[in-house]
Amino acid sequence: MKAAQYLGNSKFGVVPSSIVPPGDDEVTLDVGYVGICGTDMHIYHGAMDHRVCPPSVIGHEMSGTVRQIGANVEGYQIGDKVVVRPLDHCGDCPACDEGYTHICHNLNFMGIDTSGALQSTWTVKSRTLHKLPDNIDLRTGAIIEPLSVACHDVARARVKAGENVVILGGGPIGQLIAQVAKAEGANVLISEINETRLKFATDNGVDVIDPSKEDIEAVVMQRTNGKGADIVFEVAGVAPAVKAMTDIAAVRGRICIVAIHSKPAEVDLFKFFWRELELVGARVYEAADYDKAIELVASGRIDIEPFFTGEFTLDQVGDAFHALDTNPTGMKYIINCGATS
Amino acid sequence: MKAAQYLGNSKFGVVPSSIVPPGDDEVTLDVGYVGICGTDMHIYHGAMDHRVCPPSVIGHEMSGTVRQIGANVEGYQIGDKVVVRPLDHCGDCPACDEGYTHICHNLNFMGIDTSGALQSTWTVKSRTLHKLPDNIDLRTGAIIEPLSVACHDVARARVKAGENVVILGGGPIGQLIAQVAKAEGANVLISEINETRLKFATDNGVDVIDPSKEDIEAVVMQRTNGKGADIVFEVAGVAPAVKAMTDIAAVRGRICIVAIHSKPAEVDLFKFFWRELELVGARVYEAADYDKAIELVASGRIDIEPFFTGEFTLDQVGDAFHALDTNPTGMKYIINCGATS
Repeated sequence: MKAAQYLGNSKFGVVPSSIVPPGDDEVTLDVGYVGICGTDMHIYHGAMDHRVCPPSVIGHEMSGTVRQIGANVEGYQIGDKVVVRPLDHCGDCPACDEGYTHICHNLNFMGIDTSGALQSTWTVKSRTLHKLPDNIDLRTGAIIEPLSVACHDVARARVKAGENVVILGGGPIGQLIAQVAKAEGANVLISEINETRLKFATDNGVDVIDPSKEDIEAVVMQRTNGKGADIVFEVAGVAPAVKAMTDIAAVRGRICIVAIHSKPAEVDLFKFFWRELELVGARVYEAADYDKAIELVASGRIDIEPFFTGEFTLDQVGDAFHALDTNPTGMKYIINCGATS
Repeated sequence: MKAAQYLGNSKFGVVPSSIVPPGDDEVTLDVGYVGICGTDMHIYHGAMDHRVCPPSVIGHEMSGTVRQIGANVEGYQIGDKVVVRPLDHCGDCPACDEGYTHICHNLNFMGIDTSGALQSTWTVKSRTLHKLPDNIDLRTGAIIEPLSVACHDVARARVKAGENVVILGGGPIGQLIAQVAKAEGANVLISEINETRLKFATDNGVDVIDPSKEDIEAVVMQRTNGKGADIVFEVAGVAPAVKAMTDIAAVRGRICIVAIHSKPAEVDLFKFFWRELELVGARVYEAADYDKAIELVASGRIDIEPFFTGEFTLDQVGDAFHALDTNPTGMKYIINCGATS
């Protein structure tokens, strides 16, 4: 048994670990695969040391199998393939009172605020688990977490079949949103300036525009017969995207803020008034988003295979982070932590 | 018969006018009362000469009685008390196609883009009319238009009984929103720095805060047991209000943009993500908002009488605009155009 510890300053160490026995409401998992996401890269760069408190085990995009089951846990058997929805809510704040447990005032994000999945075994509350069906293997299961982010974004924006969707930013989440919106029957356009990401979108059946080469407002208006986009996802987090999001939105268009804006941004509030636009923030996911993501993959409505860029072992964790750091247009690097099914 | 013509540069002239006979789908009204609003003051200051093209007859908050009825018009009789919903849509744009005729791409705002109500008679399309019940007199009827704005804002923000509402800005529209939200059963707080407006709110049963003297975030959090405001109306149009709107909103709180922001504003998009906030723009009104406003006044659920600040005759139109210009904290000045009922 071993665990990858983030040591601060872009460094990892792999150390022996022991199995944490499950409490009454917990389950201990053998970890299968763990994906690396943008937040993990922020941690790697030291930007979140105040929350992560190294040395610590990070990782929250994961799959695994059930190894040991707590006394009060029902509905699971040893060997079940599962993924963890890594959110632990307090149950006693105004957000939890209204059922918004995923944006609990005191949310514990497992793998950031507490120990994560980059280890041989991980002990978690059973309420965080979702079962994987037979036809989703553990490797594919590692992508359920980011796909659930995309499902949540699409749900928050209320995407419907036939609607025109524009996604500003073609990183992993933007591309996953595109696939989910396409699966819902929307007409999807990704706006992105990086050629690798533009090609990824095109290769996977999504129309693209490079806003450094074409006027995005003109293109969207032409594409929609002068109406504008029914839905815009702001996934880029840069000023030109914040300007574009209001320029291209239709009357009563919905704009979904997915990107994390570390500073206030200049927003054209006049257009919100003039066109009665709507802006909704979307953060992480709810249980229904996990169910949706699993269904989309299990049914074959989304092909997730192209998203896998590279695979490493737990011992190679430093190499994996270095690989993503030096290939920022890569989609999904995953780490094999050993469990099989 | 006479008409008040806006001549440009804060000047009016009162000239003889003739009655425009109604077309087949039109009705000619004897104008009762016309209210002056903020947009009219912008016109008065010359800021909208490009749209108004003086000399022109302005005025769009009005009441009147039916004088003459076009051949194809049904449902109206000579003498009926009515108000005009002064929006004329094209019926042939993407917004009209979806039923959003009030934000038609080619909207003609009557009294701005075309001739308005500051005259003895006004000929309008019958589809713009709403009947007043017996117990609403023409003077009170002049306030249905701004009250419909408030009803639209409250509808866009989906205010429900028991919710905590904060209104940033205590001008006429902010105060009307407060009354409508109160009528819906919400707990309402107005944030305003002007003492006259603070007193107006208090006199009319609305709680207040002066954000220049108290920390609005602390007050709202205390008032809501740490939850924050379910709904925030941004009616002030100033940077501190744009900052406050995200500071005080609860998880999944709704923020309604009512103010007209002539320049992009610095918005804390991080809080939209973090708390899954929602922002909705609200512009003018729909037919249902007029019906609601009339019902609120007719049923006595809202007392509109305190909103009347001063009354002038059509010949005194220049004095009326000057009075509001020199008393910017006044609520509603109205002009008596002669019709009685």
